[in-house]
Amino acid sequence: MTKNRLSVSEYIQGVLDADRVILSRAITLVESTLYSDQLIAEEVMEGILPYSGNSVRIGITGVPGVGKSTFIESFGKILVEKGHKVAVLAVDPSSQESHGSILGDKTRMENLAADKRAYIRPSPTGNTLGGVSARTREGMLLCEAAGFDVILIETVGVGQSETAVKGMVDFFLLLMLAGAGDELQGIKKGIVEICDAMVINKADGTNLDAAKNAKREYSNALHLFPAKENGWVQQVKICSALDQTGLDEIWEMVAGYKERMGQNGFWDHNRANQRISWLHEHIRYLLEKSFFQNEKIKTQLDQILPEIRSGRLSAIAKARELVEIFTNIKKE
Amino acid sequence: MTKNRLSVSEYIQGVLDADRVILSRAITLVESTLYSDQLIAEEVMEGILPYSGNSVRIGITGVPGVGKSTFIESFGKILVEKGHKVAVLAVDPSSQESHGSILGDKTRMENLAADKRAYIRPSPTGNTLGGVSARTREGMLLCEAAGFDVILIETVGVGQSETAVKGMVDFFLLLMLAGAGDELQGIKKGIVEICDAMVINKADGTNLDAAKNAKREYSNALHLFPAKENGWVQQVKICSALDQTGLDEIWEMVAGYKERMGQNGFWDHNRANQRISWLHEHIRYLLEKSFFQNEKIKTQLDQILPEIRSGRLSAIAKARELVEIFTNIKKE
Repeated sequence: MTKNRLSVSEYIQGVLDADRVILSRAITLVESTLYSDQLIAEEVMEGILPYSGNSVRIGITGVPGVGKSTFIESFGKILVEKGHKVAVLAVDPSSQESHGSILGDKTRMENLAADKRAYIRPSPTGNTLGGVSARTREGMLLCEAAGFDVILIETVGVGQSETAVKGMVDFFLLLMLAGAGDELQGIKKGIVEICDAMVINKADGTNLDAAKNAKREYSNALHLFPAKENGWVQQVKICSALDQTGLDEIWEMVAGYKERMGQNGFWDHNRANQRISWLHEHIRYLLEKSFFQNEKIKTQLDQILPEIRSGRLSAIAKARELVEIFTNIKKE
Repeated sequence: MTKNRLSVSEYIQGVLDADRVILSRAITLVESTLYSDQLIAEEVMEGILPYSGNSVRIGITGVPGVGKSTFIESFGKILVEKGHKVAVLAVDPSSQESHGSILGDKTRMENLAADKRAYIRPSPTGNTLGGVSARTREGMLLCEAAGFDVILIETVGVGQSETAVKGMVDFFLLLMLAGAGDELQGIKKGIVEICDAMVINKADGTNLDAAKNAKREYSNALHLFPAKENGWVQQVKICSALDQTGLDEIWEMVAGYKERMGQNGFWDHNRANQRISWLHEHIRYLLEKSFFQNEKIKTQLDQILPEIRSGRLSAIAKARELVEIFTNIKKE
């Protein structure tokens, strides 16, 4: 059990009262892998659900070095100055071989973190992307219930996490640098396809001309991609998070997107679809968990693993056998 | 039922006899989504399993335009000239928004396809990466049982498929082009981490110097990444699939890798781990399938989906409820 756990109604009330300490504890609760915590977390989520959703959810990605933290700090600062309440969350699937973490360094985004109108939540730790992204989604809903009306979700630019983040945001922003090549060679086509805008960061000093050129090149290149089903034409913007230029235009673009998608119905349509994906994801997560934590299955797995490892037993046939055992367990 | 299905023993014998028509039909069988076909496919796989594994499995990735087909054709040609039997398979997750397919165009790799010592299998169609990659793995084992001793697995450079392919090959090769940028900015860090070698293709004509420079740059950049657990230092090579230069060196590198990893035990260790992952993947696939195809669950889902879409019901709580219903169904 999580230390000093509150009651369900205390969590709910605290979140709705925008109590930052309780908000943090509620997020910790939903991140907990303990079954007893999860049951409480579900009730808390159920309670805050009617108060969630009232925000603009923006996913932000880009390769390491592109200046994501600085961008989020400057962009967040501009938004709070405009009267918004900004929450920053992260999805970090921990890459295959190195176990990196983003937002883990508490000294990052110091200025924004110190601002009462902003809330920064470090990345949850976890080894499955599914689990981590589910937790991030719940954290987002909690922040919304606490009154944050702009949610920035940061992701490392590795591939899988972008798809997960795309599945929970309204607007997806790809940060880039100028000078990354004279064609789209290096950019992950999958990411370019799913982003709503490309923003060329570090458009300052001697880099400004290169950024303007890159903007032109990328704009041309984006014409090679098919139009989105929602009628949105992907935008290319330049900014300097350092000099705080171009950030207003980015917010105007997002606001324009919200207005237009609200009118053509895509905004709600997209969120409805995301809720269905969320259900499916969570079903997959729970199915797997109940399977691998089942004592009978554990015993069977321990017995066959050596023979699977050596290749003497077929993984496909054994998988079917185990799944059949699992779905029949309750009969006995 | 697949048209004109053979008996289990006919499939097995045909594959072991290296009958190309039966090999193709066996792969079609494992790709079938029909339950009756899958049961037969499992028996076939069980039968050929002891004869599989005797190959070098090479994953090949790279962004569109890097020349993967030409590379595979030229590389495959060199290998068959050396006395190898080469099978070419593909993992194609169909990208999120556009539904691309690779190796689908039958006019590709014409020369290699016409060679009796090679076998080219177009990409299986499917909408889940898990399903498609599982089928590719089984296709690979069938090819091995039919005597192919080099398996080339092509993947589009989008992100998810690379992880899947990494999980089924011995050696992972990233194809690149020169002039893609003066730093590693554009390259997916996740892919660079998991590849065993980077090969700069199109190192011919006026492009040769640029390729040599890129080789130097990438070699330097790779020093920034931690050493692999198996002691292998990632290599950078240049080649021209068009002029057929540099391809021998690539094969020598792979052969050297096999020898060294055989000596330090990593070769077998890696394959054993891959078999375990395969079991887990297949369990996940079957669990999900039996859940979503369950009549009771289908009825429940139909009822709640509108309320999940609208946000009135919480996806998390409903997911748990449904999974509990599912695991209790047999009790009644």
